[in-house]
Amino acid sequence: MTTVAAYAVPAAKAPLERTTIERREVGEFDVLIDIKFAGICHSDIHQASEGWGEAIFPMVPGHEIAGIVSEVGSGVTKFKVGDRVGVGCMVDSCRECENCKAGEEQYCLKGMVGTYNALDKNGEPTYGGYSEKIVVDESFTVRIPDGLSLDVAAPLLCAGITTYSPLRHWNAGPGKKVAVIGLGGLGHMAVKLARAMGAEVTVLSQSLRKKDDGLKLGADHYYATSDPKTFEELQGSLDLIISTVSAPLDFGAFLSLLKTGGALVNVGAPEEPISLNLFSVIGGRKTLAGSMIGGIRETQEMLDFCAEHGIGSEIELISASEINDAYERVLNSDVRYRFVIDTATI
Amino acid sequence: MTTVAAYAVPAAKAPLERTTIERREVGEFDVLIDIKFAGICHSDIHQASEGWGEAIFPMVPGHEIAGIVSEVGSGVTKFKVGDRVGVGCMVDSCRECENCKAGEEQYCLKGMVGTYNALDKNGEPTYGGYSEKIVVDESFTVRIPDGLSLDVAAPLLCAGITTYSPLRHWNAGPGKKVAVIGLGGLGHMAVKLARAMGAEVTVLSQSLRKKDDGLKLGADHYYATSDPKTFEELQGSLDLIISTVSAPLDFGAFLSLLKTGGALVNVGAPEEPISLNLFSVIGGRKTLAGSMIGGIRETQEMLDFCAEHGIGSEIELISASEINDAYERVLNSDVRYRFVIDTATI
Repeated sequence: MTTVAAYAVPAAKAPLERTTIERREVGEFDVLIDIKFAGICHSDIHQASEGWGEAIFPMVPGHEIAGIVSEVGSGVTKFKVGDRVGVGCMVDSCRECENCKAGEEQYCLKGMVGTYNALDKNGEPTYGGYSEKIVVDESFTVRIPDGLSLDVAAPLLCAGITTYSPLRHWNAGPGKKVAVIGLGGLGHMAVKLARAMGAEVTVLSQSLRKKDDGLKLGADHYYATSDPKTFEELQGSLDLIISTVSAPLDFGAFLSLLKTGGALVNVGAPEEPISLNLFSVIGGRKTLAGSMIGGIRETQEMLDFCAEHGIGSEIELISASEINDAYERVLNSDVRYRFVIDTATI
Repeated sequence: MTTVAAYAVPAAKAPLERTTIERREVGEFDVLIDIKFAGICHSDIHQASEGWGEAIFPMVPGHEIAGIVSEVGSGVTKFKVGDRVGVGCMVDSCRECENCKAGEEQYCLKGMVGTYNALDKNGEPTYGGYSEKIVVDESFTVRIPDGLSLDVAAPLLCAGITTYSPLRHWNAGPGKKVAVIGLGGLGHMAVKLARAMGAEVTVLSQSLRKKDDGLKLGADHYYATSDPKTFEELQGSLDLIISTVSAPLDFGAFLSLLKTGGALVNVGAPEEPISLNLFSVIGGRKTLAGSMIGGIRETQEMLDFCAEHGIGSEIELISASEINDAYERVLNSDVRYRFVIDTATI
């Protein structure tokens, strides 16, 4: 066991504090990663406040991890000391079910093991990226290509793959009109990725406050959803909408923006049930769907795609002592577009 | 103009009465059809009672029409006098939009012209199949293959295509587990069609009252949704669910029966909005979708498929004087499985 410094939430809704945690010995197929950067995801805050249900405390959040391999187990073949690597939302799965075998470990039928706020196969709690080091099985570790800086790569491990996977699955690409609801941590990645895939990209944001940003990030069009004219103008025009927000939406209105056969895919999730008139989907053979992160193979594909297209997250680098303030600012939507912790400051 | 006998609803919610209506002269591309049989669809009742909004009266319902061509216009090339033909839910569309060009006239961007309760291109009200004759453009007329009796073919024009289209679109076939919610007019067709496509078919009905019927129709399994064990047993096991009911369902519970990537497709529509927790679709990349009848080309494909597989609707043949009683029985779910009017009795 190795003792490492970390920032932890001691109890539900309590502020984060500096502490130490134990990391397991490096096993046969494990890599020890010196964490360099860890992104702050809105779901860290949901879990720290038990907004998504009962959680395990103390909690070390963080599932957007970028670092350097500093030790490898005797059986490790994918990585060597010095490699630049990332870890996302999961650190294990059953590896035997049909979804795991298909490379979709995020949908493991026995339940994937979360990077934090979960129990591993030995029943030990997992601790995330707000720490100096982490030990992870090489099968759940991905390579960060040389072309990507580690700081802007960290958020790709959640915000990147969460938007990349549905964009690919629902065929974003040349000739397709893709809209992104919400220009936050997930939304700004969706815009960059959809643009790089060749789609025509529209941002649907509450206001035009971030319009300049949106266009710089690669959006072709930017509309305020507070303006009813937006819904008249875009009626029946879109192939795919990715909703990155967790606020409840008027889903009928957004579905009406889709062409026949179009899909509205949710990667942000309201805590409360939504209301939906089914005529909204029947009238044009439309789809309301959801998507959750992506598998390990697809995460690697996403990182390679980002390196090839020069895509990183827009980040605001902070020191560990600023995490609690950063949480407040995320809750106030005051971040452009992802806080990343410099873990050297822990 | 030709005066023909018909049964009409004189005003919203009023009982049907025998009357006469005018049919237009047979135009260049029209066929005159001697109607032999007309099915009674639940949507006839929805519209006659203005359950789906304001309607046009007097209304001659009926969009499940089977008959014989008795006259053709000078430009007609698809049909000749004596041909066995059918007409479904629409009698025209713009024919120019991308959906019409793709053979999906049901999703015509300018709105298809319904077989009744609609206005045609000349602004004249359309009248449906509860009548002796109808004049229809050959492009919206389909051929009923010799192997199919006209009486059991009539309901295929709505109930058949409404279930065939989503089964095809979502790839029902060998190796796929398909469930059908509700064993009524639409549901019993979905069971027959899914079975003929090679899928493993499960009926999800409120009770086991129609279990023997369901198995005879081709279902492999039959479960009561009033039994909570049904939801435990079928958890995560289905590829596709077709919901044919218009009662509000617990959509979260039904979505949990799908495998990763599965789809729940609604062809029945509750009048009221449904409530849905989006985690139900996010957790396994699931789809909640809708589908509405099918295009003319696909309707012909469906009829040919039914003839090839010996599939007709299960019907209860009635005389025109029994229509009002039949409506009551449909509302009480007391029909196995479709009332068909012998139009010789009008």
